[in-house]
Amino acid sequence: MLAAMGDSALEKTAAFILANDDFTLIAHVSPDGDTLGCTCALRLALIKLNKKVQAVCENAAPKIYRFLPGIDGLIVPENAIATSAAIAIDCADEGRMGAAKAIWDNAGHTANIDHHGTNTMYAQLNCVATSAAAAAEVIFKLITLLQVDIDKDIATCLYCGLVTDTGNFAYSNTTEHTHYAAGKLMSLGADNALINRAVYRSAPISKRRMLGVGLVKAEYVFGGKIAYCLLTRADYAKFNARDEDTEGIIDNLRDVESVEIAILIRETEDGAYKVSMRSKEYADVCAIAMLYGGGGHKQAAGCTVRGEISTISGELIELAKKAI
Amino acid sequence: MLAAMGDSALEKTAAFILANDDFTLIAHVSPDGDTLGCTCALRLALIKLNKKVQAVCENAAPKIYRFLPGIDGLIVPENAIATSAAIAIDCADEGRMGAAKAIWDNAGHTANIDHHGTNTMYAQLNCVATSAAAAAEVIFKLITLLQVDIDKDIATCLYCGLVTDTGNFAYSNTTEHTHYAAGKLMSLGADNALINRAVYRSAPISKRRMLGVGLVKAEYVFGGKIAYCLLTRADYAKFNARDEDTEGIIDNLRDVESVEIAILIRETEDGAYKVSMRSKEYADVCAIAMLYGGGGHKQAAGCTVRGEISTISGELIELAKKAI
Repeated sequence: MLAAMGDSALEKTAAFILANDDFTLIAHVSPDGDTLGCTCALRLALIKLNKKVQAVCENAAPKIYRFLPGIDGLIVPENAIATSAAIAIDCADEGRMGAAKAIWDNAGHTANIDHHGTNTMYAQLNCVATSAAAAAEVIFKLITLLQVDIDKDIATCLYCGLVTDTGNFAYSNTTEHTHYAAGKLMSLGADNALINRAVYRSAPISKRRMLGVGLVKAEYVFGGKIAYCLLTRADYAKFNARDEDTEGIIDNLRDVESVEIAILIRETEDGAYKVSMRSKEYADVCAIAMLYGGGGHKQAAGCTVRGEISTISGELIELAKKAI
Repeated sequence: MLAAMGDSALEKTAAFILANDDFTLIAHVSPDGDTLGCTCALRLALIKLNKKVQAVCENAAPKIYRFLPGIDGLIVPENAIATSAAIAIDCADEGRMGAAKAIWDNAGHTANIDHHGTNTMYAQLNCVATSAAAAAEVIFKLITLLQVDIDKDIATCLYCGLVTDTGNFAYSNTTEHTHYAAGKLMSLGADNALINRAVYRSAPISKRRMLGVGLVKAEYVFGGKIAYCLLTRADYAKFNARDEDTEGIIDNLRDVESVEIAILIRETEDGAYKVSMRSKEYADVCAIAMLYGGGGHKQAAGCTVRGEISTISGELIELAKKAI
């Protein structure tokens, strides 16, 4: 029996779960804390409902998410078996499933649980709550509706989704409902301290070194409105750094008082350049990225370029000036 | 009339406010987002109750808090007048009032609203909720109890207190009640985006430069368990930096995976050295600081030292090793 919630798509999704017996849950490629937290939480909930369930992701979980209860249950698509039902979690379109799409295509019954405004409604049953800050808000409601006992493990998985998709409740997607969900999950045992230690307080030294180098090398031009930084292979080599060690640099550049657009360029191993751009309030960096065959959102976009980097970076800065 | 709340100290404080007519609200020295947000919020609430009220702080509000609604109403003690009632906000002891203590001493009626476990209960009426993550949680309850309409301005002030005292809901003091309060304040109009932009996304370039230098200069010793960094006057001079530009460096050092103790040493203008220490989980850095005449908490402490810095830093590192 379902608790009354008055949300038709959610009720249909709960009914979908109760009506089927074996499930594949699909987290998106390059998984983040929301897709992983939700996939782990829903898997644990389905186990409590005595369902057969496998959780699949094309990529291994990043180290910072290995603390998630049930993360060891995550398998790669090659090791997955066919199931009659499949649920995509936090996947805005089918491409986000990566190699797990083959399992999806073989499932007779499909559901899509997400919160992205760009969701393409690709499933038989689409449960997409665009006002939710994280898919975890939707999965929390779903598990509640299914009347599964939410224990400390499930609560911790869902809280991780809230924390990571809202940047600790700081992004503009955060609503009163995000906080109410977070409060309820803490009351159910969500381990806020564990999550924050694992996700935000466990940086490798190489990541701190690269942040240091990025902030020292950064140039501020156009009255400080544009922050620009180029990281070369020599920078990576000096600290034995990997690409993930550069995470967070661009946010630090954007979060300077005068900056509207931050541009981070990273030389790749094969001599190309990955360009990441962020705007703080109004500038459209996606339009710039699209000129180079890239894309993204208005305030966060990127592209990959090849050629003489001083020329290209000069062009990028000119385009950024026009966008401000 | 008061709403029912079943919290005696809070009810007495509400009655105290209703029974008096003219108030001095006192924020603590070196004010943070909690004492300032609470002082502004309570001042706005008392104005709505047609009370005479002045808000006093020994120091000017840091730039990042100038966005707070009503912050222009804050005055320095020299400009304050005598009032019959005084309320200290977020002050663990009388010393935290600084020069505003003179006004407190002249008031016939005193109340102390706080959340620190170390509060010395120095007022006639002490309303100290040690389970609250921020004084803002207490002031929110108090204003609710007073049945004052909480508008967008008051809600924003209180939300700022929650955000800054919990490090965006990440510190271990965060509880389900903190989130419930945050959710309620957002529903009342608290401007989460404004607060985050002002407090966390408005760093001066000099602050980013100093963070970069700190992270590049940092040394990791004792198997990476100790992070150590010395910032000299030359570092400050290079980027025209001030002491507040070094804020955040030590947190970045502590939040490295292997680190248990982070030590940041800053050379002062008069040739002394300010030592800041943080521990991540278990080490007692206060015990180390006390050996040099300093103090603080187990996980965050400091002291000021003079002498040959290479000798002193060697001693500090040896003491840190013993504390791990």
